[in-house]
This record gives sequence, C-alpha cells and structure tokens, in this order.
Amino acid sequence: MREIYEHKVQYYETDKMGITHHSNYIRWMEEARVDFLEKAGWPFDKLEEMGIVSPVVSTACRYKIPTRFADTVRILVTADPFKGVKLKLRYIMTNAEGKTVCEAESEHCFLNREGFPVRLRKEFPAFYNALISLAEESSCSRK
Amino acid sequence: MREIYEHKVQYYETDKMGITHHSNYIRWMEEARVDFLEKAGWPFDKLEEMGIVSPVVSTACRYKIPTRFADTVRILVTADPFKGVKLKLRYIMTNAEGKTVCEAESEHCFLNREGFPVRLRKEFPAFYNALISLAEESSCSRK
Amino acid sequence: MREIYEHKVQYYETDKMGITHHSNYIRWMEEARVDFLEKAGWPFDKLEEMGIVSPVVSTACRYKIPTRFADTVRILVTADPFKGVKLKLRYIMTNAEGKTVCEAESEHCFLNREGFPVRLRKEFPAFYNALISLAEESSCSRK
Amino acid sequence: MREIYEHKVQYYETDKMGITHHSNYIRWMEEARVDFLEKAGWPFDKLEEMGIVSPVVSTACRYKIPTRFADTVRILVTADPFKGVKLKLRYIMTNAEGKTVCEAESEHCFLNREGFPVRLRKEFPAFYNALISLAEESSCSRK
Repeated sequence: MREIYEHKVQYYETDKMGITHHSNYIRWMEEARVDFLEKAGWPFDKLEEMGIVSPVVSTACRYKIPTRFADTVRILVTADPFKGVKLKLRYIMTNAEGKTVCEAESEHCFLNREGFPVRLRKEFPAFYNALISLAEESSCSRK
Repeated sequence: MREIYEHKVQYYETDKMGITHHSNYIRWMEEARVDFLEKAGWPFDKLEEMGIVSPVVSTACRYKIPTRFADTVRILVTADPFKGVKLKLRYIMTNAEGKTVCEAESEHCFLNREGFPVRLRKEFPAFYNALISLAEESSCSRK
Repeated sequence: MREIYEHKVQYYETDKMGITHHSNYIRWMEEARVDFLEKAGWPFDKLEEMGIVSPVVSTACRYKIPTRFADTVRILVTADPFKGVKLKLRYIMTNAEGKTVCEAESEHCFLNREGFPVRLRKEFPAFYNALISLAEESSCSRK
Repeated sequence: MREIYEHKVQYYETDKMGITHHSNYIRWMEEARVDFLEKAGWPFDKLEEMGIVSPVVSTACRYKIPTRFADTVRILVTADPFKGVKLKLRYIMTNAEGKTVCEAESEHCFLNREGFPVRLRKEFPAFYNALISLAEESSCSRK
C-alpha cells in the first residue's frame, strides 16, 4: 500500500571520495519522514499550525554500500509501536538493484510552542491514533 | 586595521570533482559577513533583538581558482557607500599563496518583524551611522 | 516543449528567519542544470566519461520573493548563444502562483582531465552542436 | 592534554524551528575527527596520499539540548580500543555552560584505493600504532 519515497543523488551531495557524503542520508531521512507523514494526512505544516513542534531526539545510520551522483535511492519508512511519548521511525534505503545501501532510525518527541512535552493522547487524540495506525501498517510493510 | 576572516575548507564541502563545491562560497560570505558586523559591534543577534531582519537581496560570485580540502581561505569584507536602503558588501577570498580564489558581492535590505522596510536613519540612527562608517573604513582597506 | 524542473523546499533548507536559506538556490540551479542537460541527451556522467569536466565560473542570484518549507519551486533553464568557450545559463524560478521568486545565471567552462580548456568544436563536435541547439531552443522558450 | 575542537554555529546551519538543524552535528563530528587525527600527526590528506581511504561505516547521535545561531560548541573526541579493523570514535559536545548538547559516535574502516580492506598492522604499522595510542590517551581524557 505504502508508496516509497525516492531521492535522486545530487552533484552537490557528493564528496572528494567520489561518493555521496554520509551526512546527506540524515537529510534524506527527513525528506522521507516528511513525505511519510504527509501521505498519512499529517503534513509538518499542519502539525506546526496545531502548535506541535517535533524535535529529533536521536538518529542512527549504518552505511552498507556507497551511493553515487545521479543514483536513485528508494527509502521505505516504517514506525515502531507508539506508546504516547517518543515516535521511533526506521528507514531502509535501497539502490536501483534493490540492495540495501543504508539502514537508519530516528526518534522524535512532541513539544508545544513553549517547549513542553505534549500529551498527544489527551490533547491531540486524532494525531495520536494516526501514529498508532502507522505503526500497525508498518508492521505489515516490513514483512 | 580590520582582521580578516578565515575559513578552513571541510571535507563535507568538497564534491566529486575533488574541489570545494561552488555553493559553499555563498555560505562563507555569510560567515564572513556575520563576523564583519560582529567586529563592528553589530552582531546579527543584536539586530534581531532590535527587531531588524536583513534578508539577502542578491549574491554574485566569480570563481577564479579552485580550493581544496583543508585549505585556509582568507576573506576580506568591505562595504560600499551606504545610502540608507541597501547594504552592498564585497568579498575578496584569497588562498595561502595570497592569490584571489573568488570575488563576490551581496546586497541586503533591512525589514522590521512585520516585513516592511525599516528607515534606518530615522529609526536606528546608531546602526545607520555604523554602516556609513563601515563604508568609509572599507574605502581605506581596499587601497 | 521543454519540461520545467521542480524542486520541493525541504525542512533542512530553511533557516531561523523561517524561509529558505539563500544558499540553496545555488544548489537548485545545479539540480535544474543537470536535469536540463540530461533531457537534452548530455547527462553529466556521460560528459565525465568523455573526459569533460565543467567547473562553474560564476553564479549570480537576485532573490525576489522568499520561499518556504514544502513550497514547490519551478525552474526554467535557458541557454545564451554559445560561442565555443563559455556556456551561460539563465534560470527563472517561480512559485505555485506563477510569481518569480528568483532570477539567476551561471557560467561554465569545459576542461579536460588535465585541467586544460577543451576546444569543443574540434574535439567534441556533437556536444558543441548540442549546445548551439540548446541556445536556439532557449530563445523560443523565453518568448 | 588534548585540545578540544570548537565549532561556532552558523546562520545557515539553523532551521525554521530557530535551532541548529540536527544534520549539522554529523558534519561537526567530521570537523572534529579531522582535527583530532591532524593533531595526532595523521591528517586526512596524508592518509589519502598513503593510499588509505576511510569511509564512514556508521554514525549515531543523541541530541540532548538544542544549540542556536552563534553558540560555540566544544567537541571532545575519544577513540575506543582499536583492534585492527574498525575505528570507533566518540564525541561529547558541550555548550558554553558546559552542558552536554549532543553525544555521538562513528565507526570507520580503512580501504586501499581499489576499495579493499587494508591490514593496517602489516601494511601501515606506524598508523596502526598511532590508533592504539589514541585509544589509550582517550581512556585517560574521558576520566
């Protein structure tokens, strides 16, 4: 069901080793995450209008195979079961041959404009339920 | 009199040609500009606290000699005579041998938080006078 | 005839002013340029395989209207008449309302792997003729 | 004994949340790593001249406290005990108040120009011994 996000490697993303600089994968994770939430009906700007800010708590990347200029990288995003506070997303990035080039994950919390944690379940139940559903769908798409 | 800003080329600023990617010079101009205004007693955060936002109106770069990883680039910033609306800055970037690697310029306007042009002369005379002085000093440092 | 390149503004391309950081337009110019040459049958990797390296000689940007996160920016690329040495490209970037957000230009030269200028007309006549044609098509798409 | 690397947050490193975009910490890790190896007598360009390429195998970041434009971030780099294949580095980033803003780590392998793993102990014993020593010094500087 879920469409996969695609990123084409840009020339400015390469480094003098001739491959994609590793810092860009962190940015692609954000691109894919924005797309993932948008397709689920919860685009970032809607969340920000609702007064929800979502800082990144952690990121981790395991680089498997280098990618190069003009490569198309496909990024599958899935969500771990959501328990109300931290959202954990996983990313599998594959190249044109279907080989995994990078496995990654990120964690996110939800704050209000004053910087305090938001209790999504109470204050934003529709978004809370959406995150529960995303995790359920994710458990399928990973299989 | 004026100290010259220095930037050391980072690995992540290189591209697959083995040289610094040209987009980074635009960022170094900002680094040097922030440093230039800070040394003149007008750091960006002070301006933003005063309610002045200063968007970039234009940039131009002429790339003369490539720079490479670990090179130290020296950036001399000078200001054109200021007439109250647009600030025009010029940048001369040199390498360790003193050769010019890039000549550049940028233009800036001054807006209030609502996005309307600020009449610096009336509303912020101290900053206005500082910009006049910077241009005068600049005409010396260019000689 | 010519398809227009589209770039969606990413979260990581914004700055604390809440708008797209001005340095990113230089990168989008490259994205659009790569796409422009690819659609014309001369992708960058083909040129590099042929032994042609094409450094950027100059860039210039006039920023008209800020763009923001999740905006789609359309970029029309056109080529000035090519006389054999420098390729000059022009970029018109428009937002969803069709308003011009940025006008820009870039100049490029063509070197061999040893870093010496290539005489395209003699050494790579097919590519030379392609650049002549691109300028002719461009003069139409600008009207 | 070890000097600590300092990075001043640039305007172009902020995002529309008003804080440093999280992807930049990955780049600062590289800045600090390059500095760390340079101070140990093994600058990146020397390694590349020796024919050693060192791709990043993994990165991980835990973001603790946001940093902002013009903040100075101090980065302490330490090395885990080196056993001959993978180099694991740890980074503790602190702000002006001495509070930890980010904890991170990265892993690196060593390849020759053909892309095959280098046996440092046999082929480059001086560099191998340097990595052993760095880990020993690190175990002190962490205390």
